[in-house]
Amino acid sequence: MAEERIVTAALLVIGDEILSGRTKDQNIGALAEHLTNVGIRLQEVRIVPDDEGDIVAAVNALRQRYNYLFTTGGIGPTHDDITADSLAKAFGVPIGIDARAEKILSDYYGAKGLEVTTARLRMARIPSGADLIENPISAAPGFRIGNVFVMAGVPSIMRAMLQSLTPNLETGAKLLSITIPVNLPESEIAELFSAHQSRYRDVQMGSYPLLRDGRPAADLVLRCSDQSRLTEAADTLKAALRV
Amino acid sequence: MAEERIVTAALLVIGDEILSGRTKDQNIGALAEHLTNVGIRLQEVRIVPDDEGDIVAAVNALRQRYNYLFTTGGIGPTHDDITADSLAKAFGVPIGIDARAEKILSDYYGAKGLEVTTARLRMARIPSGADLIENPISAAPGFRIGNVFVMAGVPSIMRAMLQSLTPNLETGAKLLSITIPVNLPESEIAELFSAHQSRYRDVQMGSYPLLRDGRPAADLVLRCSDQSRLTEAADTLKAALRV
Repeated sequence: MAEERIVTAALLVIGDEILSGRTKDQNIGALAEHLTNVGIRLQEVRIVPDDEGDIVAAVNALRQRYNYLFTTGGIGPTHDDITADSLAKAFGVPIGIDARAEKILSDYYGAKGLEVTTARLRMARIPSGADLIENPISAAPGFRIGNVFVMAGVPSIMRAMLQSLTPNLETGAKLLSITIPVNLPESEIAELFSAHQSRYRDVQMGSYPLLRDGRPAADLVLRCSDQSRLTEAADTLKAALRV
Repeated sequence: MAEERIVTAALLVIGDEILSGRTKDQNIGALAEHLTNVGIRLQEVRIVPDDEGDIVAAVNALRQRYNYLFTTGGIGPTHDDITADSLAKAFGVPIGIDARAEKILSDYYGAKGLEVTTARLRMARIPSGADLIENPISAAPGFRIGNVFVMAGVPSIMRAMLQSLTPNLETGAKLLSITIPVNLPESEIAELFSAHQSRYRDVQMGSYPLLRDGRPAADLVLRCSDQSRLTEAADTLKAALRV
């Protein structure tokens, strides 16, 4: 098998409402699952408030460390939407009304017989040099600058933008996984499981405790980008556990 | 009114399973809501994999920046549970079997006629100098070291530990909030809302777009630790919006 490239990513969630507990985030899980499915490894998530300094610092830390950075939130028309300006600052580029974004908004609102007001035009503020990300739901686009993809925070719009941008992502070796449910507390399989991990160092093995029908149980999850190694490790583990 | 202290916190979620999308985190929202209710401001959240270097770096960055740091995940009996060892490393202290934790485990398992195996004893590994956090659900304790509170990742156990540790937290000025639902797209109230924010600079104002009965709408959220200022800002905003 040829050596496959590992592609990594981080997610930055921007919004006071998540940190206050008022809104429960739904984007982390959705993005994590999507990236795993296409062959990109989500390695870090941060949630920061609607604060320019915090956003700029997080963007610059994460975009340098991973192949891709995704952001959600803060691209609407109100005064607390400061993501686009913060991205321009992080990249040290100017920001202004983008002609392509303005046309998208004027077509969308025009078709509804509505004006593109100053507030709506705020959603056409895009950092210089960025590409737009299509928003099939409510028109106002996201954008890509460098290796950073800036998306809306509303979950349905975030998912639609994620679909729009996915063809532009380079993907790498998919991390395949097999889950082995065991109806025993973790502590009863821990030694055997650890010994199995030592035998298959190229397979990541994790144990996730849970209650099954009210009793302590665990899901053992094996992950590897090589299907045959993964299958072998899972089969030998099942045999050892007699499940 | 006397100047009230602002108490800040961060949360570090530890676990490959959250980053792969396999497990959907439930602890961020629960902790955020709890801290807001007791008067502590959650300012940052990070999610990192089960990797010692990543955990140590995040712990040391966050514990220095905020009054408190909470962590969830990685304190079970299996080889992928490395949170306690990582915390010892972050603080530069030794780690070993803690006599208090060992007694808790032997009492708990003893009452069930079970032995404290080597794997179970791993859950008594606690960094030197830490205080224990009671786990009323499955005995194996969390711990506090310095300003860091280390909790389990299983949501029901995390919530029980959070209740156990809360009396030991210093709390500060509670951020009170009022939500004003409007049945208009954000862009139609953005200018008025921004002007209102300029008039009440001590009140944080955020707009959260959503679909209500399938139509674009928004919740306007005002936050302030002073009840009378908050009420005034909300009443004048409602009057201006005619809602």
